[in-house]
Amino acid sequence: MNQKEMTGNQNSRDNLLADFPQGPLSRYRKKASFNWKEMALFIDGEDVIQLKNRIFSALENDPLFAHHPGEDLCREKYQELTFLRCKRLFEYEFLTQQEAMADPLRLFHMVIFIGMYDWSLCLKFFLHSGSFAGSIMSASKRLAYVLEQAYSMEIFGCFALTELSHGSNTKGLRTTATFDPSTQEFVINTPDFEAAKFWVGNLGKHATHAVLYAQLYTPDGQCQGLHPFIVQIRDTKTLLPMPGVMVGDVGKKIGLNGLDNGFAMFHNVRIPKENILNIAGDVTAEGKYSSSIKEVKERFSAALGSLSSGRIMITGLSTTNLKLALAIAIRFSAARRQFGPTEDEEIPVLEYQTQQWRLLPYLAAAYALDYFSKSLFGNFVEFFAGVLAKDRNQRQADLGREIHALSAASKSLASWTAQQAAQECREACGGHGYLAMNRLGEIRNDNDPNCTYEGDNNVLLQQTSNYLMSWMNYIRDKAPFESPLGTINFLQDYHHILGWKFTAISVEDCLDSSVPLAAYKWLVCYLLRESDLKMIKEKQAGQSDFEAKNNCQVYYCRSLALAFIEHTAIQRFHDYSHDPSVPAALQPVLRHLSALYGLWSLSKHLAVLYQGGYASGEQPGKFIQDAILKLCYRLKDDAVALVDAFAPSDFILNSAIGKASGELYKNMWGEILQGNKVLNRPSWWAEFCMNKPVIGRLRSRL
Amino acid sequence: MNQKEMTGNQNSRDNLLADFPQGPLSRYRKKASFNWKEMALFIDGEDVIQLKNRIFSALENDPLFAHHPGEDLCREKYQELTFLRCKRLFEYEFLTQQEAMADPLRLFHMVIFIGMYDWSLCLKFFLHSGSFAGSIMSASKRLAYVLEQAYSMEIFGCFALTELSHGSNTKGLRTTATFDPSTQEFVINTPDFEAAKFWVGNLGKHATHAVLYAQLYTPDGQCQGLHPFIVQIRDTKTLLPMPGVMVGDVGKKIGLNGLDNGFAMFHNVRIPKENILNIAGDVTAEGKYSSSIKEVKERFSAALGSLSSGRIMITGLSTTNLKLALAIAIRFSAARRQFGPTEDEEIPVLEYQTQQWRLLPYLAAAYALDYFSKSLFGNFVEFFAGVLAKDRNQRQADLGREIHALSAASKSLASWTAQQAAQECREACGGHGYLAMNRLGEIRNDNDPNCTYEGDNNVLLQQTSNYLMSWMNYIRDKAPFESPLGTINFLQDYHHILGWKFTAISVEDCLDSSVPLAAYKWLVCYLLRESDLKMIKEKQAGQSDFEAKNNCQVYYCRSLALAFIEHTAIQRFHDYSHDPSVPAALQPVLRHLSALYGLWSLSKHLAVLYQGGYASGEQPGKFIQDAILKLCYRLKDDAVALVDAFAPSDFILNSAIGKASGELYKNMWGEILQGNKVLNRPSWWAEFCMNKPVIGRLRSRL
Repeated sequence: MNQKEMTGNQNSRDNLLADFPQGPLSRYRKKASFNWKEMALFIDGEDVIQLKNRIFSALENDPLFAHHPGEDLCREKYQELTFLRCKRLFEYEFLTQQEAMADPLRLFHMVIFIGMYDWSLCLKFFLHSGSFAGSIMSASKRLAYVLEQAYSMEIFGCFALTELSHGSNTKGLRTTATFDPSTQEFVINTPDFEAAKFWVGNLGKHATHAVLYAQLYTPDGQCQGLHPFIVQIRDTKTLLPMPGVMVGDVGKKIGLNGLDNGFAMFHNVRIPKENILNIAGDVTAEGKYSSSIKEVKERFSAALGSLSSGRIMITGLSTTNLKLALAIAIRFSAARRQFGPTEDEEIPVLEYQTQQWRLLPYLAAAYALDYFSKSLFGNFVEFFAGVLAKDRNQRQADLGREIHALSAASKSLASWTAQQAAQECREACGGHGYLAMNRLGEIRNDNDPNCTYEGDNNVLLQQTSNYLMSWMNYIRDKAPFESPLGTINFLQDYHHILGWKFTAISVEDCLDSSVPLAAYKWLVCYLLRESDLKMIKEKQAGQSDFEAKNNCQVYYCRSLALAFIEHTAIQRFHDYSHDPSVPAALQPVLRHLSALYGLWSLSKHLAVLYQGGYASGEQPGKFIQDAILKLCYRLKDDAVALVDAFAPSDFILNSAIGKASGELYKNMWGEILQGNKVLNRPSWWAEFCMNKPVIGRLRSRL
Repeated sequence: MNQKEMTGNQNSRDNLLADFPQGPLSRYRKKASFNWKEMALFIDGEDVIQLKNRIFSALENDPLFAHHPGEDLCREKYQELTFLRCKRLFEYEFLTQQEAMADPLRLFHMVIFIGMYDWSLCLKFFLHSGSFAGSIMSASKRLAYVLEQAYSMEIFGCFALTELSHGSNTKGLRTTATFDPSTQEFVINTPDFEAAKFWVGNLGKHATHAVLYAQLYTPDGQCQGLHPFIVQIRDTKTLLPMPGVMVGDVGKKIGLNGLDNGFAMFHNVRIPKENILNIAGDVTAEGKYSSSIKEVKERFSAALGSLSSGRIMITGLSTTNLKLALAIAIRFSAARRQFGPTEDEEIPVLEYQTQQWRLLPYLAAAYALDYFSKSLFGNFVEFFAGVLAKDRNQRQADLGREIHALSAASKSLASWTAQQAAQECREACGGHGYLAMNRLGEIRNDNDPNCTYEGDNNVLLQQTSNYLMSWMNYIRDKAPFESPLGTINFLQDYHHILGWKFTAISVEDCLDSSVPLAAYKWLVCYLLRESDLKMIKEKQAGQSDFEAKNNCQVYYCRSLALAFIEHTAIQRFHDYSHDPSVPAALQPVLRHLSALYGLWSLSKHLAVLYQGGYASGEQPGKFIQDAILKLCYRLKDDAVALVDAFAPSDFILNSAIGKASGELYKNMWGEILQGNKVLNRPSWWAEFCMNKPVIGRLRSRL
């Protein structure tokens, strides 16, 4: 690069990314081994940063999005604000339909940028324009007019699947849709309150329409299974419930209280015949059920894929929480001083080995999972293009299965990692981490449902282990096999890999992610073999398929699915960080992150490496542990710059101790003094001053 | 026991402990291997159950303590209610001073029973009558009149130690108390807002007096170090701040929002000379500092002990959260059905291996840590009797050190275990666990500060490892040694134990806690040796003491402290559950719990067992894992009865899915319909119906 190009790059960077104020964090920023702006551009690209800037500054400049420090926002008010802000998003239209279609990754980023500001708002928006509208889009074109109404907010949608007594087991859902040929209508009924639709986002207060799943009954009394229907819930002119609908709010949640989750019961609610989303089947005017098996199979692969979109999105949302929590905790740790080598000198808590070890592996995870979630989304876009093009090749079906397996486990991995990181970050910030204004509680509480919705993590992992176990027949038969994305291709060498051993002979050897990668390949093969053997043993002992599978989960299939998805994430980040196209200045730090994430993840499986004979003696464990600590130490001076590269603006991050200036005490103090009646005596002061208790007065009542 | 005695016991049991209603949980209750009432009486005793019943029914029958389902209690109102309830506790006087003194364990239980209802209330009460009054009690008798005022609530107290910029490092505190001989007063000053007293419970809204820690300056300009003073904060007649005091509320927290945590700054606030709590030193009328070194040493051991009281209390509070979370999650899991071997039959989720493995080890932990925290409290009572009797024996000093080491680590172990359990229970209850009404979020959020206050867990663990490392000189010299409570006595066999190996040859062998106990003895010795070697290596490499110690924490001293405290807890529960006096009907289940807690805790150290050569080959790991699963399976039918034995009444537990009836859907449904305007359209309906957005209207502004 010549001087002029460099200056040009420099200018373009500085226009996109503003410098940070001088302050307590400057010391670390100066020590960083790389330029944070170069990193930001490398990981996100100019387009995405422009989109981010556009969204962040629109929100910051609009009083409707203002924060109100010290205000105790009640749930009703928070829900109102969330709705008004959601409406405003339609007015900003950060991406048009066309722009989103042209580059779906921008859509993914837009959702995340809104989420960085507030997850309730993000979900309200996404449930309507993604889950609701998306379901209709993938069905018949005859419902295009509903889509138009959704996009112009004539109606507001929700996605109503789960019921009070059924979540994971969707086959057990009991809402019915009975076809009445005399009126050409479906009649929707809820048999009892245990079958009330429940947990549905947007339904609590104002959704007017639902994509509702119900058991379809034909006039012959046959149940044709679960089908989606469009059902109007509320009058669009009044927001009062439609006749026969009882609808309400499920009440306060641990988090996400700006979002109105609701319940609904239906009593002979009639909808026109054309409101069935004829994805899997349809009904003739006479009430005969029609569904071509072939179509069902194809649609099944499409349905798997569409489940994947939600899970990949959650992988991205969780990774975003990971970033938010780390931005706060690392800036705090670099600014907060406590103890020191002498009485006069206190050092930043980031200098302590324990603090580094608590936080920096999660920072490495944030980088690895960020790349992983984006690359998975890219895979999904490829798959979805095939769906839209009605691609009927085997590859398309295989791709659907592979993405399904990947997304089920990636959602689990990312949501758990973020949940643990939020807790660790809260604790790493000590008492100040416990103040609501510093946002770590909100992050933890809002991330929590990521572990549950679209499938409980432990249940979802079974999808992935089922997929992996399905290759055992090929492996046993030594038949060739591969998958479209290649994530299971290394299993071709299963027999060979099972003979591998840990071979590093020094700590230095372990400082590259190739070491954990090799160990992971062995680990996946070993756990696959063990899971398979366990399954055979269970069946030989007379257990049914159902029981056998249940009894193979802990220490076997569950570990297998986690090891596999960790391997996939590490492999991708390894390839990414070792690519020759990585700018030279970024290579060392990215490789350190890759190695740290790999080794730290692997260290949780260390016992299995020993148990299965991959490792033996004291050295492997020590090398891995020493390498983790060494990498943490190497990364500590880069940590602030690494979070600078992904942290949102101060307004969006909305955390006094997480602000880019690092002036944590000034920022906290300023915000505390904005508190409502912060310096006033309580309104109930006379209850202390006048109405004194008579000690033991009520003791006789006991 | 003859028939008459049995009937007598039966009657006394039934009077104390009411039967549960028939319902979905009856099936499990019938399958239990023991009588839950016998268990409750065995673990708590009749006296404690009577106290519990008295407290629980007083609160349930008093409208001031009523729950308000569906009400969105704002922080200000919650603080007011908490104060009023606290005042009411003085009127109930569940225990008089005399009763508490006569049997301090009852005091411990009383605090816990109030906490089961609401932690904010419990802390408000305890900070005043425990931390504040207790500090004064252990100082000079001349302040007895302050105590009297506190007990009659003429004044309300708080304990003001930490400052905005200093928590863990108390030596860095900067509030000053300068003696002015001309008026015989101390003058209190806050140099700047970073030295504002901060986080102080009760200070936010209404404490009138503080035990305040400040650097004592004598007229010669000398700083004499940190000392406690009684400082009046607010006027008792008006609750307005005293002249020169700026006092306020720190704002919303992640949890515990009924408690008003505050900050305060002092500008030349004058207090009389006698307000110094002359624990460590005093000042003469002329302004000369007096402190006998001997007394300081003694007082230091007393001070360590008094720190221990808080940490042992937190061990108990955390264990209580563990119990609350499990009562909810296990009753839910026994009532919630999802999937099944056939399409028609769904089974309780507690029947799934994964669910058992997620929850039952925590249930075992609840039993083990419950016994551990009570036994630790007993040790503390013995120690404190020595303090009050001014016992100057070496044993008393040794006991102080040992209890300090135990309480620092037990607080860490219990608070982390409860925090992880709360998260696991939340996830194990799926979406319903995320509803605020089911209380798991409150438990997690209220337990969270237990990981931080009275010392960050990671920092506290250093106290314990320091204590353990201090025995290495004896070990190296092969000199005899022992501790008053005997928790480190096994280290006498250090050299011998290091040669031990894992010897179990079957899964059946591992079903008793003696197996993990032996492994733990080896583990503690191994980690002690490794920590010692690492420390020597660091120092040889030229590191200062400060650096060397910091660099020995991760994988060494930190693991050592955790392994030691786990060993102590398991040893005590092993001895308890294997005591011949345990009723025969309870022996099997208690021993299963002991083995499960031991093995499950040990399984987290499995890699170290391999690394250090205690275990080798595939079998040890498999035996331990299989034994854990086998014990989970054996305990699943006892799980409901095990939580019945410690769960508070439905009113106190206050969780729709955790109610004893197990009618989770009816209970949720009933509570949801109590929600405020639950079925009403939102107040802002016109914002949807009339004021439609113009899509993209603001796009040009971007």
